[in-house]
Amino acid sequence: MKRSLGVCYYPEHWPEAQWHDDAARMVASGLTWVRIGEFAWSRLEPDPGKLEFDWLDRAIDVLGDAGLQVVLGTPTATPPRWMLDRHPDMLAVDADGRPRKFGSRRHYCFSHRGYLAECKRIVALLAERYGRNPHVAAWQTDNEYGCHDTILSYSDAARMAFRDWLAQRYQSLDALNRAWGNVFWSMEYAGFDEIDLPNLTVTEPNPAHVMDFRRFASDQVVAFNRAQVDILRRHTSAPIAHNYMGRETGFDHYAVAADLDIASWDSYPIGFLSDRLEASDDHKAAFLRQGDPDFQAFHHDLYRAVGRGRWWVMEQQPGPVNWAPYNPAPLPGMVRLWTWEAFAHGAETVCYFRWRQAPFGQEQMHAGLLRPDSAPAPGLAEAEAVARELADSPQAQAAPADVALVFDYASAWAWDTQPQGADFDYVRLCFAWYRALRRLGLNIDIIAPDTADLSRWRVVLAPGLFTLSDSLRAALPSCQGAVVFGPRANSRLPDFSIPSDLGPSLPGLDCRVARVESLPPGSTVGLESGGHFVHWAEDLDTRAEVVLARANGQPAMVRADGLHYLAGWPDDDTLFAVLRDLCHAQGLATMDLPPALRTRSDGRTRFWFNHGSQTITWQGTDLPPCAVLQQVQR
Amino acid sequence: MKRSLGVCYYPEHWPEAQWHDDAARMVASGLTWVRIGEFAWSRLEPDPGKLEFDWLDRAIDVLGDAGLQVVLGTPTATPPRWMLDRHPDMLAVDADGRPRKFGSRRHYCFSHRGYLAECKRIVALLAERYGRNPHVAAWQTDNEYGCHDTILSYSDAARMAFRDWLAQRYQSLDALNRAWGNVFWSMEYAGFDEIDLPNLTVTEPNPAHVMDFRRFASDQVVAFNRAQVDILRRHTSAPIAHNYMGRETGFDHYAVAADLDIASWDSYPIGFLSDRLEASDDHKAAFLRQGDPDFQAFHHDLYRAVGRGRWWVMEQQPGPVNWAPYNPAPLPGMVRLWTWEAFAHGAETVCYFRWRQAPFGQEQMHAGLLRPDSAPAPGLAEAEAVARELADSPQAQAAPADVALVFDYASAWAWDTQPQGADFDYVRLCFAWYRALRRLGLNIDIIAPDTADLSRWRVVLAPGLFTLSDSLRAALPSCQGAVVFGPRANSRLPDFSIPSDLGPSLPGLDCRVARVESLPPGSTVGLESGGHFVHWAEDLDTRAEVVLARANGQPAMVRADGLHYLAGWPDDDTLFAVLRDLCHAQGLATMDLPPALRTRSDGRTRFWFNHGSQTITWQGTDLPPCAVLQQVQR
Amino acid sequence: MKRSLGVCYYPEHWPEAQWHDDAARMVASGLTWVRIGEFAWSRLEPDPGKLEFDWLDRAIDVLGDAGLQVVLGTPTATPPRWMLDRHPDMLAVDADGRPRKFGSRRHYCFSHRGYLAECKRIVALLAERYGRNPHVAAWQTDNEYGCHDTILSYSDAARMAFRDWLAQRYQSLDALNRAWGNVFWSMEYAGFDEIDLPNLTVTEPNPAHVMDFRRFASDQVVAFNRAQVDILRRHTSAPIAHNYMGRETGFDHYAVAADLDIASWDSYPIGFLSDRLEASDDHKAAFLRQGDPDFQAFHHDLYRAVGRGRWWVMEQQPGPVNWAPYNPAPLPGMVRLWTWEAFAHGAETVCYFRWRQAPFGQEQMHAGLLRPDSAPAPGLAEAEAVARELADSPQAQAAPADVALVFDYASAWAWDTQPQGADFDYVRLCFAWYRALRRLGLNIDIIAPDTADLSRWRVVLAPGLFTLSDSLRAALPSCQGAVVFGPRANSRLPDFSIPSDLGPSLPGLDCRVARVESLPPGSTVGLESGGHFVHWAEDLDTRAEVVLARANGQPAMVRADGLHYLAGWPDDDTLFAVLRDLCHAQGLATMDLPPALRTRSDGRTRFWFNHGSQTITWQGTDLPPCAVLQQVQR
Repeated sequence: MKRSLGVCYYPEHWPEAQWHDDAARMVASGLTWVRIGEFAWSRLEPDPGKLEFDWLDRAIDVLGDAGLQVVLGTPTATPPRWMLDRHPDMLAVDADGRPRKFGSRRHYCFSHRGYLAECKRIVALLAERYGRNPHVAAWQTDNEYGCHDTILSYSDAARMAFRDWLAQRYQSLDALNRAWGNVFWSMEYAGFDEIDLPNLTVTEPNPAHVMDFRRFASDQVVAFNRAQVDILRRHTSAPIAHNYMGRETGFDHYAVAADLDIASWDSYPIGFLSDRLEASDDHKAAFLRQGDPDFQAFHHDLYRAVGRGRWWVMEQQPGPVNWAPYNPAPLPGMVRLWTWEAFAHGAETVCYFRWRQAPFGQEQMHAGLLRPDSAPAPGLAEAEAVARELADSPQAQAAPADVALVFDYASAWAWDTQPQGADFDYVRLCFAWYRALRRLGLNIDIIAPDTADLSRWRVVLAPGLFTLSDSLRAALPSCQGAVVFGPRANSRLPDFSIPSDLGPSLPGLDCRVARVESLPPGSTVGLESGGHFVHWAEDLDTRAEVVLARANGQPAMVRADGLHYLAGWPDDDTLFAVLRDLCHAQGLATMDLPPALRTRSDGRTRFWFNHGSQTITWQGTDLPPCAVLQQVQR
Repeated sequence: MKRSLGVCYYPEHWPEAQWHDDAARMVASGLTWVRIGEFAWSRLEPDPGKLEFDWLDRAIDVLGDAGLQVVLGTPTATPPRWMLDRHPDMLAVDADGRPRKFGSRRHYCFSHRGYLAECKRIVALLAERYGRNPHVAAWQTDNEYGCHDTILSYSDAARMAFRDWLAQRYQSLDALNRAWGNVFWSMEYAGFDEIDLPNLTVTEPNPAHVMDFRRFASDQVVAFNRAQVDILRRHTSAPIAHNYMGRETGFDHYAVAADLDIASWDSYPIGFLSDRLEASDDHKAAFLRQGDPDFQAFHHDLYRAVGRGRWWVMEQQPGPVNWAPYNPAPLPGMVRLWTWEAFAHGAETVCYFRWRQAPFGQEQMHAGLLRPDSAPAPGLAEAEAVARELADSPQAQAAPADVALVFDYASAWAWDTQPQGADFDYVRLCFAWYRALRRLGLNIDIIAPDTADLSRWRVVLAPGLFTLSDSLRAALPSCQGAVVFGPRANSRLPDFSIPSDLGPSLPGLDCRVARVESLPPGSTVGLESGGHFVHWAEDLDTRAEVVLARANGQPAMVRADGLHYLAGWPDDDTLFAVLRDLCHAQGLATMDLPPALRTRSDGRTRFWFNHGSQTITWQGTDLPPCAVLQQVQR
Repeated sequence: MKRSLGVCYYPEHWPEAQWHDDAARMVASGLTWVRIGEFAWSRLEPDPGKLEFDWLDRAIDVLGDAGLQVVLGTPTATPPRWMLDRHPDMLAVDADGRPRKFGSRRHYCFSHRGYLAECKRIVALLAERYGRNPHVAAWQTDNEYGCHDTILSYSDAARMAFRDWLAQRYQSLDALNRAWGNVFWSMEYAGFDEIDLPNLTVTEPNPAHVMDFRRFASDQVVAFNRAQVDILRRHTSAPIAHNYMGRETGFDHYAVAADLDIASWDSYPIGFLSDRLEASDDHKAAFLRQGDPDFQAFHHDLYRAVGRGRWWVMEQQPGPVNWAPYNPAPLPGMVRLWTWEAFAHGAETVCYFRWRQAPFGQEQMHAGLLRPDSAPAPGLAEAEAVARELADSPQAQAAPADVALVFDYASAWAWDTQPQGADFDYVRLCFAWYRALRRLGLNIDIIAPDTADLSRWRVVLAPGLFTLSDSLRAALPSCQGAVVFGPRANSRLPDFSIPSDLGPSLPGLDCRVARVESLPPGSTVGLESGGHFVHWAEDLDTRAEVVLARANGQPAMVRADGLHYLAGWPDDDTLFAVLRDLCHAQGLATMDLPPALRTRSDGRTRFWFNHGSQTITWQGTDLPPCAVLQQVQR
């Protein structure tokens, strides 16, 4: 698979006279893909049933004739205003019970049958018309499922669908009442139609109730996406993708991707640093105009797993954005760095968002590769540089990794439902482990929680895993190296109750969690090594070998053969040391990279990325700020 | 009255086969009381009118036969789901106008007549069946009135009831309009049915309106509780209790308790430290796993007053809980310490919550004396230690105190309605005074605002008292020592208006409050002594003797004979010095205890409690961390 | 025009027997104006159509006979309770969709036609009865439009009126869709009745949509006010005023004032410091009991512009207020200082709010000139001192200023709609520029954004101006000195889209804004001078002369002839230096005043104000704390 660049383009935003020039400039810049169409429903069907596809025909022709491959998006994230007249109750409802109104985007409830039928209709029309168009080389379903907190809806449609889902899952009320433990606080139900959505309760609802609602909501997204994919498949053999949003965990991305060919994600490093990263003020100040050095890599590795190897960056930040609390501009070099980092992690294609900054609408302050006056914005030259470099570059290829980190969406829902400590967050936990591995200079694979074969990794890590799947349990012996389960791992049964042996219930490891505690910021549990547990610590009943102990002698980490359990959330340096020792024991070489320096090898080339604003000297080589260095290996 | 221990138990959560063992283990652990039933409505009446009391008969038999005395709770805090079909409008409504839905607990409006009738029905059924059961040795009404902010409801039922309440109170609109000062901003009403609840107004509603709504809401709780008590009394002579929640001031606990025999409260020292205590970060860190050294004692002394001498801890934290923002585990020794502290303050019984940690439901992360796997949790051994120690211990007895602190629920409502400074809080104010008295090593009585005889105390303190009751005013001469009123005391008439003489209107004390100011954090008013007023300072018009002056010479505290008025909120050290001097003037001996060390004497034994994590040496004796020392006196 | 003092009085709050005494004391104190009536609707019309004006007749007689001139307020800010029965849907609706209920004030939607008719009716009745009353020497419409966030209403009435307003503005849907850029995200409308209000959308609504809603809402206020003025004009020749609230920018004050004779504002220096000023904790602590040294002056200069030279302080804080988070008391001298500062800036009249502190209602903790017990409050003596001083003082007169600052309400709406950086605020930006000019010791004129002649100022400043009006553009050549546009100036077309040349599009200045970035607190862009841009920085494409550069050499401020563009938000010291140099280049003398010292000249007298709590020595003269010094000039 050849590495390539692309861009997101909205022909409907510009005079048709400009399309040719735009297409020619794209090609001249070295871009080969162009994504279009995903918000254009009001132009494709201005009135119900009144179809106007001619302009799209022409746009695809212009772009394709210029030599570009088109990714065509289904426009279902932005139903036109007339849709509300046909389906007044299609709006999602927020947790406060307020309908989420028309006037922006994603204003639909995944459970609304009427809107689903409309989506199938428009997708079918598009698929029929463009499914065999030679220029349409890929499809995208909808846009950023879950963005703007749109997975959970408390609408009537969702309530009805949830009851059906529960009836299907449990078959009997007795089964549901038992599974949820509804005897607690007299919450027992006598009919599925008595069950409401778990919002606006006096105090917290039953976590089992919430967890099933989260599962249901995820399943609704899977079904919504599958309905589109099923139609597309009937008319096209082009690959189908969805563009996931960064740090979005409202639904199971693996499950949606099971119906897709390519996973893609939308990478906004500077917006994410400001908006969705737990880090110190100093860290955020140091990377203000570069983004966090590990955040994008984490997602790259995640979506490589989600896409079963095939993945893109569908939207790459090319300059300041409009939506974060603060929106600084990238330092020179960062657009190139971000692009190359995606390729180093195995991306096939990186598309910039967007071609030209729009002078109107919600995103008028969002940079493009061009300014609104069509002059080049700073990002364009960097994209062009990458395009030139790609011409000399080998194909994208799968790269080996010795370490795997399990990432599981259900765990994110579980600990969001029951954090127990106000700052316990599953993504934060996994990301802390990921960052330690990056500091060690390792290639990392993120893997799904139902991975059936662990034989290719020397170290497999699973912090915070809600429940241990049967397949992962069965796969444990396949790992020839070390497996480490972390705090809260397998501490619940699927119905959200505590296992009778208290967990983590790991085969061959004599260890049960006797008690847990959550810790406020600044409070810690001391370790013998001098480090600390922060956020979370567990008391173990165990006769297993103690690998790490608390200052008071209590076991902090135990093992039996290669199977480990780490009974707390270590501070960053401690986690680094624990994982380093573990790697060394498995014969893996490690580094201790400074915070701004990161590396990845694709097996043929070792990439070095300096995310900092100062030159870094590493192993005798000077790496300038915001720079990428490629070293051919072997 | 013999001191005793008990536990909260939910037979309906466990297989019947386990009940015998559980009961036997309770008895073997030295527990003599078991509280049951308070959340079991859906098991007692699974469908409307379909009663299933057999299991409860058997549970009581098992527990009673094992030698335990049962506290039977009425299940009215958790109406089953079918109740909503009968009374769809029974839900409380929050201040934003949203019904508070089924799915947790306390989902009822105290003003709903239909639900009240259902409660009377189920209580009557329970009373008839178990009123003379020899094992049922006490009753509990409902559970934690006010928990989860459930006193104020903005429902239609509340609106109707509030209008009736107002009509009864004022008899005429003119009287109401005058009392509230409704001429202000044209708020005059022409009919009681024009009066709405005071939520969602454009800016703040009339404080007189809010204050009457608070009084009404409190009266609704009193009536709700009385309806249950009246029925129980017809069938049983066992004592009746309610379990109040810590730092809950939404209704008048004295008034509810006037219908009860025993006051009890639910003591969660570590949860409260995190969740409902104003203190510095350093203080919270120092007592993270012990709870605040004065918070529990304050409530013990309060509920001794509320219970007119008879009081219990109905729920005692035995390990980490689930509901605070962070939930650390108690240090070893604290469960014992907390228990003994309750006894030192005169508790008859301390019941641990709960017997076995539930593996399901909202509180699955709430520790019990047993773990979910029935192994002993760390708290159990400490409870057993107390049980052994109690065997040698004398009876509980009333202990003398030389100092009394007035605590008044209406004052909490008043200053919550009109804080004037964002951090002015009545409980915080009283607690600051209480803490100073504790640092002085004194026994303290908390007393009601209508106390009619002050002769038994040498020092009586009343900071922040909204209005001076006729009875307390009449009692003032009965105090042979010093009486100190504090900031804002008697600054309002009962209708919430400012008295014509501006207050505090104390007999024989020439002093009126000319002006007040609230102060943001960090801003202070300097005192001659070098200390400061914080939060609040008042300018006095006075010719009385000045006991304490501001740095600028203005009076800060004045007196006439034994009657004092303190015109501000002193910092902690200043308050300590003021009260120390006052005690010394009354011939009381005082100490200056370090923050973690506290003491109380029950007249026969002096108890010392080290709440700290370090050994304290005091008067030549080493007191280990988290330890209790008992010294026999006389 | 003679300078004078007045007071706000509520005869309906007090026994009629007290009116004579009150009037006599007012006169004896040197007050000559008394404002009454603005909240008295329920007393003027206790039942619909039942008019009771006799008491007001007598009150006016008593006050007028004592020698006072009456300002009579229309009572439309407080419709009586019965109004809701006639117009149940008249309530404003908040952004969450909740009606804003009766029980305080301002509970009406400006768009409700029924309520508007009621207002016209009561105003007509008042105008007919008192329009020629010799004691009624001025009128006030309503009270503090916009206070308590009451400009934006999301009611059905507002929705209907907004659609009409849009239809009138755009005439066709195509025009609206184009102007708003509704092709973005398929937001196109096919009928005006499809357009909803821009609340509760899934993510941010189209800024063009919001901006038109803001314009519409402002127009509704103008129309509401004009309806009252039109009626009053038919019956009276007395001047008509409105009392604007401090830092209220919800509607266009210039546009409302175009129908009035006098602008007035309500000045609460200490409340504003606590409640609505961005400043460091140190600054707030230093001016805790004095208010910010520039905040009142800014409003004085603003309302001089709004009133086209005629302006009052209608409500002047005389002591602690009740509504800020914290409410400290003014230092001695501040009431006099505030009063004189208003006169120094050209006020005709300063009225204190209020005569006597009310012992009831929402504002019972709001100080008056008298205490509730009718004793003098500390403010009274200071008011009397000013009254004595005024007797010797020349008339009020217009004072010259060399510097003008453009202030524009639409810009406040625009950047509130699209801040791009979380702390970007238009008032904050303008106030920073104003403060720098005050530190320079300059007289300042604030001017409207459509000012047609700039010839009288040497320096004209326009930071953050949303769009450059045709009239201001045409006036630019009339300025003989320097004009400085600041960050974001003219960066949008009126429809909220980015201009095709990217802005600022200033005549003769070769400069376009290539890129902008917003910066979080603590992050800055360094300047060559050693200073910094904070909050906001812009990259320029320019060939103009560079006056100020970034540390990296990029242009930070450019000019062509006298026209300047400053491409960022300088820190305070940098801004001071930039403006100082600019003034010097124009031959203006400047000072560098310490933070607490401020000055203004009215052309005859130079006033010095020490807002600090310490004596300041300035040019050899000692100025005591909280003092005013008047130096006769020439």
